[in-house]
Amino acid sequence: MSRVFNFSAGPAALPAEVLEQAQAEMLDWNGSGMSVMEMSHRGKDYMSIAAKAEADLRELMDIPENYKVLFLQGGASSQFAMVPINLLNGPDGKKRESADYLLTGQWSKKAVAEAKRYCKVNLVADTTDSKFTTVPEEASLKFDPDAAYVHYTPNETIVGVEFDYIPDTGDVPLVADMSSSILSRQIDVSKFGIIYAGAQKNIGPAGLTIVIVREDLIGNADASMPVMFDYKTFADNESMYNTPPTYSWYMAGLVFAWGLKKGGMSAIEATNRRKAEKLYKAIDDSDFFSNPVDVQYRSWMNVPFILADADQDAAFIEQAAAKGLVTLKGHRSVGGMRASIYNAMPEEGIDTLIAFMQEFENAQA
Amino acid sequence: MSRVFNFSAGPAALPAEVLEQAQAEMLDWNGSGMSVMEMSHRGKDYMSIAAKAEADLRELMDIPENYKVLFLQGGASSQFAMVPINLLNGPDGKKRESADYLLTGQWSKKAVAEAKRYCKVNLVADTTDSKFTTVPEEASLKFDPDAAYVHYTPNETIVGVEFDYIPDTGDVPLVADMSSSILSRQIDVSKFGIIYAGAQKNIGPAGLTIVIVREDLIGNADASMPVMFDYKTFADNESMYNTPPTYSWYMAGLVFAWGLKKGGMSAIEATNRRKAEKLYKAIDDSDFFSNPVDVQYRSWMNVPFILADADQDAAFIEQAAAKGLVTLKGHRSVGGMRASIYNAMPEEGIDTLIAFMQEFENAQA
Repeated sequence: MSRVFNFSAGPAALPAEVLEQAQAEMLDWNGSGMSVMEMSHRGKDYMSIAAKAEADLRELMDIPENYKVLFLQGGASSQFAMVPINLLNGPDGKKRESADYLLTGQWSKKAVAEAKRYCKVNLVADTTDSKFTTVPEEASLKFDPDAAYVHYTPNETIVGVEFDYIPDTGDVPLVADMSSSILSRQIDVSKFGIIYAGAQKNIGPAGLTIVIVREDLIGNADASMPVMFDYKTFADNESMYNTPPTYSWYMAGLVFAWGLKKGGMSAIEATNRRKAEKLYKAIDDSDFFSNPVDVQYRSWMNVPFILADADQDAAFIEQAAAKGLVTLKGHRSVGGMRASIYNAMPEEGIDTLIAFMQEFENAQA
Repeated sequence: MSRVFNFSAGPAALPAEVLEQAQAEMLDWNGSGMSVMEMSHRGKDYMSIAAKAEADLRELMDIPENYKVLFLQGGASSQFAMVPINLLNGPDGKKRESADYLLTGQWSKKAVAEAKRYCKVNLVADTTDSKFTTVPEEASLKFDPDAAYVHYTPNETIVGVEFDYIPDTGDVPLVADMSSSILSRQIDVSKFGIIYAGAQKNIGPAGLTIVIVREDLIGNADASMPVMFDYKTFADNESMYNTPPTYSWYMAGLVFAWGLKKGGMSAIEATNRRKAEKLYKAIDDSDFFSNPVDVQYRSWMNVPFILADADQDAAFIEQAAAKGLVTLKGHRSVGGMRASIYNAMPEEGIDTLIAFMQEFENAQA
């Protein structure tokens, strides 16, 4: 067996150590005589797995006590609806008419489209004209103090653009879709009303969604909407109102424990910064590869680059695969390549990619 | 390592062969150099896994071509909402005011409660007074021809009661929550408008929901509801509108392939009938164990039984566990024991349980 360097944007690579542990425990978790997949979510064994996963995530992210951590299903796409359904009635019980959105890529665009089903959407920023290669300057943002909340996407996976600041929204709750940036660097959770993330990038297998929500934002959901879209349904039941995605939750727990073992977020952040800087430097130093994103706002997690000669794309992908560098094809809307380099991508993978890129460029001469 | 006989009601036991294959493939699926968990759902490898799972399920259940098979998240609890949201506007576009429900246990009760958010619920049957130990006789059912649909729960897991017939609802679509009975016996899919099932009993890991829906029932969802609760969202995108629960889908595929290898539904049905009859006979032949459910409507999948002396419950559970017979504790609303004997429970598990029950009873003398 030989493992590849998998640059998939998501579902994405997982740490080999985590997969090895899952493999070892597949038919018998800790002497229980059964797989974690086969456990009742109400049993002692599984409850201990679930609780440890939450505790480790709280430690990793330093999540304040007045925030609930929910383990849900449905992906960020469900949160696009769940956020307005829960937040339009503010903590004071007064219905808000609108929410502020920052439109900076394909994912925030989808969030905007879904929110329009429930309220007026006020676009505080819209970087469509830049082809989403930048984010608004902080000083340019004018928020509506009567908005139910402000929603943004700190990292957009397709073009690879990332905020280097957290917008200051005053008393209006800030909501962030961190699907592709959660656990990539230290963040101050207390600055957010809600952080949500599909698991399939930095957390674990697809099918799990983490929602970190400030307690005062729970309990005001629109009662005409599905009970499964009410945060309170899950907050009141330790995320076990119905059967949760137990195995994905367990895998996430293994990833969180791995993160702590790696030294926690400060160590992970330092590694991620180094990985990204190294790869961008290789692109910028090259005459053959390029990345169009504003240098200040380049994503640490998703690094798209195009070849000077698009006719070479297929050859690049084929030769890269032969060296064990896979899933590098860029999103069809951008073309070229995209190297997603989440936490589980070892530095060796970046070095191997850079060496191959230089080799490929030299062969063009 | 020694595997137990796990009688959990769900998440439930999986076939050891399936877990062994998943274990072998954990770090490297079919020479791809990556785990199925790490694969892009848009890539060729994963697409082939997903397509084979659907094809095998279609073969197993003999699903007609005019039905879509959707691989969703959110469990049966999400379907409790998704069904009215999608079916209240009939195929003719006319909004219906009510739906018919058969209330025969805790799960249909939850379905009823959720449906009331969206429409008038007409209870065509209600077996609450029997403590859910029976189901209505077929001849007693009077359906409303103007109802949007008829919803029922063919098998209720808590009390262990199961319909031995499929209600004839004429032109009104019949909707069944088959979470605990899907793949347990042959059924004629063409008699249903929608069949849905949480995966965590006879299909695979929790976090996957299978929906088998007749095509004419797709496309009429209430547009004020979340796009993630519209069947069309998934039917138009091969269940990949957003990232699906890829690993659970893969595991379900392994289970479907295992079912075909076992000889398909006729063979599985024969085994399940034999397993259930054997266990009920042991209970009925005993003076110490009893089951209150109408003999005609006893579940093949969930076999609750109580001890003549409830003070012996703890001793029974402890001694059973020592013999590798686990997760036998009954639901708190019923007490006693519950043996859930889904497809993955080998006949040897039933034999071992029966032998232990007889031994335990004899020791009471």
